[in-house]
Amino acid sequence: MYNTGNFARDCALIRQRRPIILNITNYVAMNFTANALLAVGASPVMSKEPSEIEELSAAADSVVINLGCLEKDQVRSTELAAGTALSEGKPWVLDPAGAGLSAYRTDTALRLIKEFKPSVIKGNAAEILCLCGQGYAGHGLDSVLDSSEAVSAAVSLSAKTGTVVCISGKSDYITDGNMLIRIGNGSSMMSLVTALGCTASAICGAFLSVNSNSPEAAANAMSLMGLAGEKAAGNCAGPGSFVPAFLDALYNIDAKAAAESIEYEKRTA
Amino acid sequence: MYNTGNFARDCALIRQRRPIILNITNYVAMNFTANALLAVGASPVMSKEPSEIEELSAAADSVVINLGCLEKDQVRSTELAAGTALSEGKPWVLDPAGAGLSAYRTDTALRLIKEFKPSVIKGNAAEILCLCGQGYAGHGLDSVLDSSEAVSAAVSLSAKTGTVVCISGKSDYITDGNMLIRIGNGSSMMSLVTALGCTASAICGAFLSVNSNSPEAAANAMSLMGLAGEKAAGNCAGPGSFVPAFLDALYNIDAKAAAESIEYEKRTA
Amino acid sequence: MYNTGNFARDCALIRQRRPIILNITNYVAMNFTANALLAVGASPVMSKEPSEIEELSAAADSVVINLGCLEKDQVRSTELAAGTALSEGKPWVLDPAGAGLSAYRTDTALRLIKEFKPSVIKGNAAEILCLCGQGYAGHGLDSVLDSSEAVSAAVSLSAKTGTVVCISGKSDYITDGNMLIRIGNGSSMMSLVTALGCTASAICGAFLSVNSNSPEAAANAMSLMGLAGEKAAGNCAGPGSFVPAFLDALYNIDAKAAAESIEYEKRTA
Repeated sequence: MYNTGNFARDCALIRQRRPIILNITNYVAMNFTANALLAVGASPVMSKEPSEIEELSAAADSVVINLGCLEKDQVRSTELAAGTALSEGKPWVLDPAGAGLSAYRTDTALRLIKEFKPSVIKGNAAEILCLCGQGYAGHGLDSVLDSSEAVSAAVSLSAKTGTVVCISGKSDYITDGNMLIRIGNGSSMMSLVTALGCTASAICGAFLSVNSNSPEAAANAMSLMGLAGEKAAGNCAGPGSFVPAFLDALYNIDAKAAAESIEYEKRTA
Repeated sequence: MYNTGNFARDCALIRQRRPIILNITNYVAMNFTANALLAVGASPVMSKEPSEIEELSAAADSVVINLGCLEKDQVRSTELAAGTALSEGKPWVLDPAGAGLSAYRTDTALRLIKEFKPSVIKGNAAEILCLCGQGYAGHGLDSVLDSSEAVSAAVSLSAKTGTVVCISGKSDYITDGNMLIRIGNGSSMMSLVTALGCTASAICGAFLSVNSNSPEAAANAMSLMGLAGEKAAGNCAGPGSFVPAFLDALYNIDAKAAAESIEYEKRTA
Repeated sequence: MYNTGNFARDCALIRQRRPIILNITNYVAMNFTANALLAVGASPVMSKEPSEIEELSAAADSVVINLGCLEKDQVRSTELAAGTALSEGKPWVLDPAGAGLSAYRTDTALRLIKEFKPSVIKGNAAEILCLCGQGYAGHGLDSVLDSSEAVSAAVSLSAKTGTVVCISGKSDYITDGNMLIRIGNGSSMMSLVTALGCTASAICGAFLSVNSNSPEAAANAMSLMGLAGEKAAGNCAGPGSFVPAFLDALYNIDAKAAAESIEYEKRTA
């Protein structure tokens, strides 16, 4: 059974400490991600300006870097922010959004992983497989493969880089190279709304800021996303009304009670 | 009567094929446009980075270029993306958002039309008149003239450039220089919400990716926007709740039944 | 008692004249701010491109400059836009979002104030104190101090710069250096939604475009935000559904009736 104590504890810690989460993210996700971080009790800061990014990184409790809509100045900012996080021992999350979609994003993701060792890499199956040099099994930004099909690649990537890898999808998988966690919560409605994957990475940054056990933090983030997604899917008439219902669900969650509904499995990788 | 078979057929084809629509668009519209494309079943990709835009254009089923919030790097990207679309015979839509509002946008629009021959130009009356050198009858981003007042300019522009021209407004007009289609669906609430015009252009890109008859694709896009707008206007308490209701309506539409409600006229231009 | 006549009069004037409000603002706020301006009857234009910003400023009825997600090109644009506003005697609002969070934002804010004399500076307590050289009492983008704790700094800043200063918070304070207005409307839900502060500044720009009495315009803007916030808080299930409810409330407000609910105090500063 899942360690529900830590899920509820960490949800409460985020509300109590209001960790500052610096997000270098894409234009599509910015508003929704900021609102999701506020809804869980965190304090979002958004920037992609090299002139201020080191100062903002130093003041943040964790850093989240997302490669969607990647641009030249943003690349410089990701290097400065990841460098600051690494040198200060601060957790940081890499969301290689669109790795495989363009060489520009793939190369940037691979360089950031190699040089700045993220705490967690969170991508879909296509992105994770691409980072392992296994081509791009994507259709636009989506994976055409089930998340389960990227598990062995994720385990290898994790073992090779020393980074926790999280594959999002129908089930979410988290591995540190040795063990594998599967989270089964969520709703099919979540693939019909943009920026939910990006937001999962940001929520992962929030959990990392209160829990140094990276696989547990990632699992808690994916659980919270899935639980809120299930709740919202039951309270909406389509993907439009899903959006406010999802933010309401993040805000209103009773973490102790909700932890009982987490679908969790753990095994050796 | 309207060829409702193709409307319903094309709505179904989009859901079936999940065409990849590359959008170079403005910051205001990005999230809403991505969610609208997902709601109709398409696969949106957003970028404005020159380093990756040709690769993304080559992978897309159609390209949509919107000049709102136009910036220097974006201009370069529009040229590369439109050039790729032209050379590969791929449909692309130009939304000259704000043409007439600044010389920078007007000049960019005119150059893109001349050099890269869009499949469809979609603008409001003020923008279309401005592209015909008839000054700017706009107030901010809105037209002060009714869409019907730009019909003869649209016909000339279409005849001169060989491009289908679509004027959005209370009625939408589509012309290929020879014939004129009028779509009468929509709601006054639609002018109170930002990015609906930009999103209409993106939806037009989705229809073009499954139907090479450009006037028909544009008419289908404007019909779907209008039908969803009517539905949402009946399900909202103001422009705020209109937004999720509109996305829900796009997602939930029964295209076969809805086609019966399309207000359609066709005549010689 | 509050001069309710001018509140209702100015709400009506905005709907009647549809003033063009040019916003140089951050990516997070753009969509929501544009929709809020449309909901009150104004005509929003968003840009941060130096090539067109002077032309757009010259065509606008007021200019709103917000330093969130500040970037290099945007700095140049703020200078050009503020310069145009100053030289043409056009009202402009400075929202020093994140002043104190980075030296880059603080320095830009101070330079804009000094060189281009904004009509109104609207910030939270931490930002206003920081502009007065009193360090940064912020946590991320939020103030850790109550708005009342920045009143004397705001009065000094106003007296020193000749600019009206507005502190947003649980109560909002507006001063011209001589007198102080307090507006008590609002809801705690408003601190859980991103971009509401940025939007307050934009709404202030709308009121300034129809009322040259800057403190009154700022007070009317904060009153409208607070009244709509109260209404929305009573019509939502959390911060997600607050967003559409807030825009609906801005749109549907009966300004004459609502004016009776404004919590207003005025005294010597």
